[in-house]
Amino acid sequence: MLPDEMSSVPHVVILGAGFGGLTAAQSLRDAPVRVTVVDRRNHHLFQPLLYQVAMAGLSPAEIAMPIRSVLRKQRNATVLLADVTAVELESKRLQLRDGVLDYDYLIYAPGTQNSYFGHNEWERYAPGLKSIEDAVEIRRRVLLAFERAERAIDEDERRRLLTFVVIGGGPTGVELAGAIAELSRTVLAREFRRIDPSRTRVILVEAGARILPSFDDDLALRAVDQLSEIGVDVRVGARVTTIDEAGVVVEQQGETDRIESRTVVWGAGVAPTPLARTLGVPLDRGGRVLVEPDLSLPGHPEVFAIGDATSFLHTEGKKPLPGVSPVAMQQARCVARNIDHTFHRRPRETFEYFDKGTMATIGRSRAIAQTGSLRLTGFTAWLAWLVVHIFYLIGFRNRIAVLANWAYAYFAYRRGARLITDHWEPPEVREQMPPSVRAKPPSYASPR
Amino acid sequence: MLPDEMSSVPHVVILGAGFGGLTAAQSLRDAPVRVTVVDRRNHHLFQPLLYQVAMAGLSPAEIAMPIRSVLRKQRNATVLLADVTAVELESKRLQLRDGVLDYDYLIYAPGTQNSYFGHNEWERYAPGLKSIEDAVEIRRRVLLAFERAERAIDEDERRRLLTFVVIGGGPTGVELAGAIAELSRTVLAREFRRIDPSRTRVILVEAGARILPSFDDDLALRAVDQLSEIGVDVRVGARVTTIDEAGVVVEQQGETDRIESRTVVWGAGVAPTPLARTLGVPLDRGGRVLVEPDLSLPGHPEVFAIGDATSFLHTEGKKPLPGVSPVAMQQARCVARNIDHTFHRRPRETFEYFDKGTMATIGRSRAIAQTGSLRLTGFTAWLAWLVVHIFYLIGFRNRIAVLANWAYAYFAYRRGARLITDHWEPPEVREQMPPSVRAKPPSYASPR
Repeated sequence: MLPDEMSSVPHVVILGAGFGGLTAAQSLRDAPVRVTVVDRRNHHLFQPLLYQVAMAGLSPAEIAMPIRSVLRKQRNATVLLADVTAVELESKRLQLRDGVLDYDYLIYAPGTQNSYFGHNEWERYAPGLKSIEDAVEIRRRVLLAFERAERAIDEDERRRLLTFVVIGGGPTGVELAGAIAELSRTVLAREFRRIDPSRTRVILVEAGARILPSFDDDLALRAVDQLSEIGVDVRVGARVTTIDEAGVVVEQQGETDRIESRTVVWGAGVAPTPLARTLGVPLDRGGRVLVEPDLSLPGHPEVFAIGDATSFLHTEGKKPLPGVSPVAMQQARCVARNIDHTFHRRPRETFEYFDKGTMATIGRSRAIAQTGSLRLTGFTAWLAWLVVHIFYLIGFRNRIAVLANWAYAYFAYRRGARLITDHWEPPEVREQMPPSVRAKPPSYASPR
Repeated sequence: MLPDEMSSVPHVVILGAGFGGLTAAQSLRDAPVRVTVVDRRNHHLFQPLLYQVAMAGLSPAEIAMPIRSVLRKQRNATVLLADVTAVELESKRLQLRDGVLDYDYLIYAPGTQNSYFGHNEWERYAPGLKSIEDAVEIRRRVLLAFERAERAIDEDERRRLLTFVVIGGGPTGVELAGAIAELSRTVLAREFRRIDPSRTRVILVEAGARILPSFDDDLALRAVDQLSEIGVDVRVGARVTTIDEAGVVVEQQGETDRIESRTVVWGAGVAPTPLARTLGVPLDRGGRVLVEPDLSLPGHPEVFAIGDATSFLHTEGKKPLPGVSPVAMQQARCVARNIDHTFHRRPRETFEYFDKGTMATIGRSRAIAQTGSLRLTGFTAWLAWLVVHIFYLIGFRNRIAVLANWAYAYFAYRRGARLITDHWEPPEVREQMPPSVRAKPPSYASPR
């Protein structure tokens, strides 16, 4: 399509370049539309491997691709780096922080953000894992805890520094806990002189009755076994009541227990972004947008909503769909078809989810997977996990680089991305930064 | 050596794990000493390739190795992550921000930091290139300028956004300017729809009479030619008098000229860290520590100082040595030998620098190099540069990964590390951050 033909065709704006948004853009490749993908970030993030960045196994660039680069050959697509502050359904317009963007069709796919269930004050002590920045911060905290433990003279302080608490027993929490245990027992164990990183305690705290609720009971039990093998202490039915710089307080069977720890990671929950409230349409209790069977918004056939920011209840038993990438991607393709049906004045189709199964990895060479009636555990499940994740990694270069890094980490028991980096600040901010912001370092003495 | 034998042997503390410090540690591998390497960072940085991180060609982890990992097999070495605030020569003790560290021998190798010649207010507008954080910030600014130019509606603003000023005509400035020009002309040119990145202006500003003063005249002229070929505008004899958010003011042949630009990078100077002033020994005009022929401090035979934080004037013509890594590494080996001579009550040797030559790269497949009477330019020089830099990259894995990334970037005209990332902030800081801190974004409108 030539640029001057462009303004005469419908303008499809896609809000968010996650798995849903990017798939939607690609599915509209040959449609007689012009597509604008708008995102706050310049990169698409391969979320399933984000915990590997937090654990120094991969570099950020290996799991993130510039959106522009992914769509560079799609001539009907434009990428816009912008922060959307509101959706105005009546005027068919997005308010940006620094401008506006009009649409004929909107595909709403903003995803979710970390949610602390009303305890936003916990965030500074327990960062979540949603962005590259989160992952780099968690990596910084975990590596710094080992460095500080190496210098600690007080045994209690050393114990606090070598105790890691992961909150939330979903796949993210399980993967993080397993990876911390492994990082300390294999990679770091040989490099410290004064501490024994194999004495690290990793505690996985889950409020529900068991971890990995999206898996079958027996598989979840196998996951608990595998976690125990690598030294992760799994506590179920443990509700977090406090998080502060000294650790976590949990309530378990009526008893209150303080876990002293300097490093807490949050994997317990995500929630839709506040943007949903600007839509003015019905939301479910969790703040998700309720969509019609064709994935459009009620009363707005020109607006579709997909991914984990939405709630699709038109299934058997009205069970909500899980917030995973296959749902978002299948919804994206369905929306592209429904836009095409609209152009051809055909009736729209109802979205149907085809569940290909689910998997979670537990450190090096351990995992669980279920698909249809097939159940896998241990090394076989881990190999399946590896193949699926490498296969779906966006961008050929990244696949090769990630495989090379994994092979290196696997065979050499080392990890390349173990950087503790801070962030660049202009001098004024450096001076203004209140000293209380970061957890106070305990006092150390000369190692002499 | 067993741990309990350790306390009876002399304690050598190495301050700084740059090229000098790390080489010193490795050279003391078989010496009857225990070595403690203390650094503010957990990683050794391969500085010569830092500009590649700033230009999205490499990931931070590819040019940085955890110090612990480099020294993991050296049983007499310990690594300490700590911030040294003062050196107390009389009590043979380092003051740390959170403790103290006593030594028998000290190898002082702290390196340099960005220097704005008394204009520290320029730093926020023109970050330098000394650390991973600096490189990631420059990458963020350069990539963001292109993203904003894509959205700009005002032609003047678009021109400001596509004008990049690099200050300083040394190797760092030349490499940065060449790399920005190339990034825009090859990699980005195919991915933007509304701007033509090949219309980017890159201006290299040098106050002296010519760029690359450490090279022969004719080679420096060839560098200017090669820079022009890829579109870099070289301005010599241009003294910077102002840097602000709208650009740079230069004074050239008595005339004042304002260059309007949203992205300015500082490559004009470095200076020793303020730590030198705590030593209480004579410094040169630039703040560098003056050392004896054996690299020790005057009156302190147990303290050696090496690298670009020092000034060694015991050469023919008393010409100071350049602040490059071969000097630091050769000095490190000389210090290790002099410590050994001391143990054996032999006289110490005088340091002699063997100049292997110098090289600078100018974008993809262009460079200059000189060694002895040999002069190389163009592709041959670039190949030589590639081989030398890959060869000296610390850590086998990194060599492979860097080569793979370069091959990819070279043949596919793409770059993998094009991430615009911000940094993680606890919620309180996010709210406290004064809005004036970052340059105000100009206003944009809908691309419709």
